Amino acid sequence: VTGERPGEFDFIARLVEAVDEARRELSGDAVPGAPHGRVVVGGGDDAAVTAPAGVTATSVDAFVEGVHFRRDTAPLDAIGHKAMAAALSDLAAMGAAPGEAYVQLGIPPDFGEPEGLAVAKGLGRAAAASGAIVAGGDLTSAPVLMLAVTVVGHAASAEDLVTRSGARPGDIVAVTGELGGAAAGLLALERPDVAGLALAASGASAMIDVSDGLGGDARHVARSSQAALLIDLERVPVQPGVLEVAAAARVDHWDLVASGGEDYELLVTLPPDRLDAARSAVEATGIALSPIGEARAGGEVSLRHSDGSTRAPSGFDQLRR
Amino acid sequence: VTGERPGEFDFIARLVEAVDEARRELSGDAVPGAPHGRVVVGGGDDAAVTAPAGVTATSVDAFVEGVHFRRDTAPLDAIGHKAMAAALSDLAAMGAAPGEAYVQLGIPPDFGEPEGLAVAKGLGRAAAASGAIVAGGDLTSAPVLMLAVTVVGHAASAEDLVTRSGARPGDIVAVTGELGGAAAGLLALERPDVAGLALAASGASAMIDVSDGLGGDARHVARSSQAALLIDLERVPVQPGVLEVAAAARVDHWDLVASGGEDYELLVTLPPDRLDAARSAVEATGIALSPIGEARAGGEVSLRHSDGSTRAPSGFDQLRR
Repeated sequence: VTGERPGEFDFIARLVEAVDEARRELSGDAVPGAPHGRVVVGGGDDAAVTAPAGVTATSVDAFVEGVHFRRDTAPLDAIGHKAMAAALSDLAAMGAAPGEAYVQLGIPPDFGEPEGLAVAKGLGRAAAASGAIVAGGDLTSAPVLMLAVTVVGHAASAEDLVTRSGARPGDIVAVTGELGGAAAGLLALERPDVAGLALAASGASAMIDVSDGLGGDARHVARSSQAALLIDLERVPVQPGVLEVAAAARVDHWDLVASGGEDYELLVTLPPDRLDAARSAVEATGIALSPIGEARAGGEVSLRHSDGSTRAPSGFDQLRR
Repeated sequence: VTGERPGEFDFIARLVEAVDEARRELSGDAVPGAPHGRVVVGGGDDAAVTAPAGVTATSVDAFVEGVHFRRDTAPLDAIGHKAMAAALSDLAAMGAAPGEAYVQLGIPPDFGEPEGLAVAKGLGRAAAASGAIVAGGDLTSAPVLMLAVTVVGHAASAEDLVTRSGARPGDIVAVTGELGGAAAGLLALERPDVAGLALAASGASAMIDVSDGLGGDARHVARSSQAALLIDLERVPVQPGVLEVAAAARVDHWDLVASGGEDYELLVTLPPDRLDAARSAVEATGIALSPIGEARAGGEVSLRHSDGSTRAPSGFDQLRR
């Protein structure tokens, strides 16, 4: 960190280059700044122009130092990576193909150019891993590091997307991957999330990413779908290490599994006759799909233990983070 | 401000309602939450789904307390209004029709529900005044008030949009409205900016919003277009009161006119034979269009006084704000 702040426009150019370098590393694309098919006018103008072929799904996610992450416990490129991956998980939860990303970066007073470039590198890598193009952004001073990410995904038609409102009584409730790891402070897996596309194509009736915790996000689906979700906690796949971390920290590991946030796995409902096909399609991407319950008539969520006891479906409150 | 923070999901519902109420007030639309033609799936799911008919122009703008505004000198609804209006001015500068807006709101510790709703009201009013729909958002805690706004505009094709790169030698350089007011601390005019659409339809060759100051934004156009922009400072329209404020503050009023930012008027270049038609079209929206110079071969900007002296085209540096 130097006392002198780099000129804004040169700094932006180097941030854009860092993002593009991450894209080229992952794509093997040798041409710097090669335009993406959908992006007609890229960054550097007042707005980025794209030519969507069907419908677009747009989601925004903000990450604020001291609220969502701490700089003393996470490297800067991991912070950038996580912010982009979390935003993209909302597209996965719609079954939309990742398209463009836009980043508003708030730079704290003690940041120099190397720190900014490290964040940009992480953002660029996560975008490239999902096939998304960083098409624009905004740079500002801020009291702490802030990343506000906007992602746009694409689908041929709205019928190809999976909302939260389609769960029907009789549907199977399933979850991708394993939960509890993020709440236990374990490193989340870094992979492009194509499971959402596979699930959308396999007949998922409702889908959401488990970023607010299993209980809270199941409640979103239950309310939007006006269906009850009965989840058997012992069937929920738990990430290795969660039990050990919970024991060491003397917390109930079920709290981490059922209420911990930021796992970014997908909670999905499916007609029973679609489960096998969905499972095969998701497992072909290297990710497990575990049935954990069923949908019934109603509008509430029940998290049940095998001994018959239940647990309140509390979610992670963004405003308390 | 109460000691108790409202529950996140209820608070979001009330923020959405405040934005929608502002829309209904301005549109005379009696139906709460009436879906907009383009928005297929609105807020409340993982992503908002829209069905764009042609190309989209997307721009992001972040506003941070202590950097872009102070809460002790501006009412909260005006802060929300300004953040949305500034983001929308980037769409005006492309000649894109305002479509959807997405807001990432960072709520400071001393904010209660009334403060959040006041900001939402301002955001909603500015969006509604331009015909934009607030289609989604994200809410988080933050050390200071932060607003990160994403706006999406629409056009039938990319050829209907005006970038920064089309200025050609021989073009007239013109500016909408009057400059210097924001730098002098005067209240900016609150109106939907349809001048951009009128200019795009009238054959503008390049366009940019004057948010970084006349000199800095002219330089963006000059570099993107690889054309020199010669601007006669005495022809630049100055907002009433700027001279008086500059005299009282003992600053050179030309600094406010040429280098002050946040005016959000449009700087445009046009072939000479298009000027009259463009002027008529813009003036029909109640906004003046003043020719202030011409484009020549080259790539730099010259801000000339009538006595032959020149002024450095310095812009407003976002990172120093």
